[in-house]
Amino acid sequence: MTNEISILEKNIEDLVFAIVGVGLIGGSYGKYLRKFKVKKIIGIDINEDYLNKALDENIIDEAYENPNEALKKADVIIFSIYPSALVNFIKNNVKYFKENVLLTDATGIKGKLIKEIEPLLGENMDFVFGHPMAGREGVGVGQSTGEMFKGASYILVPTSRNKEENILWMENFINLLGCKDYIKVSPEKHDEIISYTSQLPHVMAVALVNSSNMDEDANYFIGGGYRDTTRVADINEDLWADLFLDNKKFIVEEIKKLEIQLEEWRDALETDDANKLKNMMKMATIKRRGIINAKNKN
Amino acid sequence: MTNEISILEKNIEDLVFAIVGVGLIGGSYGKYLRKFKVKKIIGIDINEDYLNKALDENIIDEAYENPNEALKKADVIIFSIYPSALVNFIKNNVKYFKENVLLTDATGIKGKLIKEIEPLLGENMDFVFGHPMAGREGVGVGQSTGEMFKGASYILVPTSRNKEENILWMENFINLLGCKDYIKVSPEKHDEIISYTSQLPHVMAVALVNSSNMDEDANYFIGGGYRDTTRVADINEDLWADLFLDNKKFIVEEIKKLEIQLEEWRDALETDDANKLKNMMKMATIKRRGIINAKNKN
Repeated sequence: MTNEISILEKNIEDLVFAIVGVGLIGGSYGKYLRKFKVKKIIGIDINEDYLNKALDENIIDEAYENPNEALKKADVIIFSIYPSALVNFIKNNVKYFKENVLLTDATGIKGKLIKEIEPLLGENMDFVFGHPMAGREGVGVGQSTGEMFKGASYILVPTSRNKEENILWMENFINLLGCKDYIKVSPEKHDEIISYTSQLPHVMAVALVNSSNMDEDANYFIGGGYRDTTRVADINEDLWADLFLDNKKFIVEEIKKLEIQLEEWRDALETDDANKLKNMMKMATIKRRGIINAKNKN
Repeated sequence: MTNEISILEKNIEDLVFAIVGVGLIGGSYGKYLRKFKVKKIIGIDINEDYLNKALDENIIDEAYENPNEALKKADVIIFSIYPSALVNFIKNNVKYFKENVLLTDATGIKGKLIKEIEPLLGENMDFVFGHPMAGREGVGVGQSTGEMFKGASYILVPTSRNKEENILWMENFINLLGCKDYIKVSPEKHDEIISYTSQLPHVMAVALVNSSNMDEDANYFIGGGYRDTTRVADINEDLWADLFLDNKKFIVEEIKKLEIQLEEWRDALETDDANKLKNMMKMATIKRRGIINAKNKN
């Protein structure tokens, strides 16, 4: 057991943070932490350009490809790297972590990740999993912004291992980030919902772009519908291959449900069933307005 | 044969226009025509509120639910109504059309429409089919704007019946509307391309929204990806049921191609084939950038 006082009793100005992965999301965390005047920001990345840029822009105080002993100073470590890289980083560096470090992440899937990470941690190390529902086009620290999480919802995925004081600290931190609200869900429920709300739209957009070979004339036919529907087909394949495979059980189910809908469409078209088509469209219009309005109300 | 001089030799200020369907698109045409100082704008709609609003806002000079004799004055008639309503309007009103009237439309499908309309026209009446690749959320004349077509591509679908002078007049008109460029394609090619670039994204968006029953917690999980991918699921079901059924041959083929892509996804996920997933995403990223860049270059 540690004799250190709880993180909740410390001011954020007295805390040392490490950010693992100083890209779009990690760089944005750095810009927030600088505004909060935290004691020190340690940046860790395998991309030297990102580190240099983050130092130049005063987003971080120290930069490491391999932090080793430097990690011992970190009270809080924020991970914004791919799931597989996250697990490897902890395996290789847990020996340098502070005994009662608080860890958190921004990873889009949880179940498999949590199962792999929790057994690696020391008794008093506490990983409070979660992520903001935020993001933007582009990659890299150059695209980061200290307003990234403003107005976003935040998803917290507490586990039985988490200390109540650390969950409370995260809730305060989420408020500081300017998030609109947060919700707590189980890892299983998280991964099921996210497979529909985030992963399936990405699958669909990629499938749509790949499903036709357009000639040059077709470029004249691109309107707002195509542009919006396929925006997320411009995708970081290394990150998303991890996310998709770690959550394949749920995604496969969601793809099957989508295929059933497409069968309904084909059936209605082939049988000239205007009423069925109209009902499907009416239902989608009502459902989507409900979702978007609920979201705006939150 | 008519003794009147060709429309090309007339100034636009000397022409009388009729707009059939004074909604989002028709109202926008009205606002353009007012800027061009055309001789007169006749508005025709079954929605009395739209007509009154269009009169109040000085978008049209005269308003009719049933124009009858008033149509005889129109040199140009622009249709912005559903395909089925368009065919019916011509059946019922062709007897009032000027002998050498120029007709044009903004309808999203062409093949079936052209086959039905051309036999209804008098010998010197000329329907130059086409549409701008433009639109916006919302319906009704209240959403119309005199900048609607600025920067859009325009699709012209000439037929063997069209007079060269009338196609030229349309090309000039497209320039006046501020369109970026235009292309001429056959009805068959038009409907094939549009089934992929416009209709399939709408099918997909509706299918995605309908494919899952979300509880309230899921509202916290809605991010930009879901919002963009499903935007066009908020859809006018009466208009689109017409468009989908009139083009069902091509749409069914596009849905089948999309289903093949989704099968590829399921296969890659079920066999843990990270390389296959990455290749599909890489291909989509490259293809989409090519499409968007080509479009910006045009």
